[in-house]
Amino acid sequence: MVTIKDVAQDAGVAVGTVSKVINGQYVSEKNRMKVEESVRKLGYQMNFYARGLKTRNTYTVAAIVPEILNPFFAIWVYHIEQELYKNGYKMLLCNTQGTVEKEEHYFRMAAQNKVDGIICVTYRDAEPYVSEEIPLVSLDRHFEKRVSCISSDNYLGGELAARKMISTGSKSLLYLRSGSAVSGETLKRGSGFADCCKANGIPCETVDLGDDFQIFENGSSSIDDALCNFLISCRRTGRMRYDGIYTSTDSLAWVLLTQMRKLGIQVPEEAQIIGHDGLRMMNRGGYMVSSIAQPVEEMARKSVEMILKKIRGEETEILTILPVKFVDGGTTR
Amino acid sequence: MVTIKDVAQDAGVAVGTVSKVINGQYVSEKNRMKVEESVRKLGYQMNFYARGLKTRNTYTVAAIVPEILNPFFAIWVYHIEQELYKNGYKMLLCNTQGTVEKEEHYFRMAAQNKVDGIICVTYRDAEPYVSEEIPLVSLDRHFEKRVSCISSDNYLGGELAARKMISTGSKSLLYLRSGSAVSGETLKRGSGFADCCKANGIPCETVDLGDDFQIFENGSSSIDDALCNFLISCRRTGRMRYDGIYTSTDSLAWVLLTQMRKLGIQVPEEAQIIGHDGLRMMNRGGYMVSSIAQPVEEMARKSVEMILKKIRGEETEILTILPVKFVDGGTTR
Repeated sequence: MVTIKDVAQDAGVAVGTVSKVINGQYVSEKNRMKVEESVRKLGYQMNFYARGLKTRNTYTVAAIVPEILNPFFAIWVYHIEQELYKNGYKMLLCNTQGTVEKEEHYFRMAAQNKVDGIICVTYRDAEPYVSEEIPLVSLDRHFEKRVSCISSDNYLGGELAARKMISTGSKSLLYLRSGSAVSGETLKRGSGFADCCKANGIPCETVDLGDDFQIFENGSSSIDDALCNFLISCRRTGRMRYDGIYTSTDSLAWVLLTQMRKLGIQVPEEAQIIGHDGLRMMNRGGYMVSSIAQPVEEMARKSVEMILKKIRGEETEILTILPVKFVDGGTTR
Repeated sequence: MVTIKDVAQDAGVAVGTVSKVINGQYVSEKNRMKVEESVRKLGYQMNFYARGLKTRNTYTVAAIVPEILNPFFAIWVYHIEQELYKNGYKMLLCNTQGTVEKEEHYFRMAAQNKVDGIICVTYRDAEPYVSEEIPLVSLDRHFEKRVSCISSDNYLGGELAARKMISTGSKSLLYLRSGSAVSGETLKRGSGFADCCKANGIPCETVDLGDDFQIFENGSSSIDDALCNFLISCRRTGRMRYDGIYTSTDSLAWVLLTQMRKLGIQVPEEAQIIGHDGLRMMNRGGYMVSSIAQPVEEMARKSVEMILKKIRGEETEILTILPVKFVDGGTTR
């Protein structure tokens, strides 16, 4: 199918220019003629015209994330903004800090056409606020309604983590997770990990810290204490009960690693750690921990591509899963 | 008084073209540059802004930062958004990546009343786009026009860094900086440092990496190489030429520390490092390096307080300087 990008390329103009022509905004006569020529030549279907719905576009998309103090979300938001800007769109940023109230506020804005669409990372039950009329793209999270979801291959990520630790000699594995248990793609990390352990006859346990311990919010030191106590209990017999730990995020892996170092537990000799996300030191250097890296930039690009399609009223995929890979951050053997 | 007609005549374009530029509408790049040149030359006051057109508030403030891949700006933006939200405002986020074009775009939006105000961190010469009619609060950067500037005590920061290193035995100090040299509060870091060294009879040099080496942008590895070569040259005689290095930011200190570790230079034994900003590991744990910590949350609160005052048309302070403090991150003795 011919896309707006094809038109832009053929006409030799920016995607934003094509978008302006389609939306009847001002562009120079020369550019308008080029775009219209390419539209004719390529047979681009301007669904937008056909619908004639949106009279007022705001050219603004809201990005809703738990909080950009978490470097993963800062990188995500960074790429989302870059991609939106390339397409002539602006980004409203909303840090929900996990509160439903703030999310609702932004969903209401979308319903009132104050933003053209929403790209969200929510781990709460936002179902009641999701409407088929609001262009919505979700990271990692399914909704009953037809919301497009972008994710990476979480099941494979779990498998890769287990395979790596088993192949380097780990005999007793742990999956450690924190955060909301609302059904989403990320829960598959644990399944992939457990299934791979089972297939290899390696015992594997799961410890779920749940929502109670926040990593970035105020009072976050309680998770440090909880992990410290947990590690002490794991070592009661003199040696670590687990010699390989896979965590649901790199943030959690980092907190765990810090506590293990404090207790003098040798990483990776006594126990290996693999996180999930692929965060780098200062967002630029080496990996913070060995990890399952998500293709954040590509996920952001795909999310923006999708939200723009939805805003134009085009059909989009329901679920897009991008590949992950193992990266060595020095916490594995 | 200079009128729009004078500008048109000087620029050799139609009055309508000038009007379009003022209103942020599309004109060719060539014409826009001509008009902007004449506006600057003639000192045209854009009465458009002054007409008191503000009938519609958008309850939106644009936050312009170089890029939130830099954790300092991620934290800054996080707190700005939280404060704006408390006051019923939304935040548009713009990562300029140091490009003037993107900054201009947002300044034009403000001129068109598409945002109520701007909170910006700019290290370029945005002077031509700054108008007294656009509510604007700047971090660290002065403008000729009456723009409120929020900063922390950069001069004291430099002094504290020098004092700490001198009191712990350093005999030969270096101030290492990178980034734009556009006049701003942050330049005082170097002055405070140098003045304190002088007062104590300790030799102090400055090395300015300038704008050429980006820490976060693509191809950022060139700064790693440059620092590595610099350190090798500093050690040509067998021992480090400097036994204490103060850097203009923690990001730079981190890159420096990484290179020093790679070369086997003992920190803090052979040379101490003090950065500036007060960044923590993963935005939550221990400090990344010994540093001069800025009160980011308080600075964000103050910035929002100011921008709201300006939007309401109230008088505000021109410069607000908040206190800094030394924090130990293990890279000092």
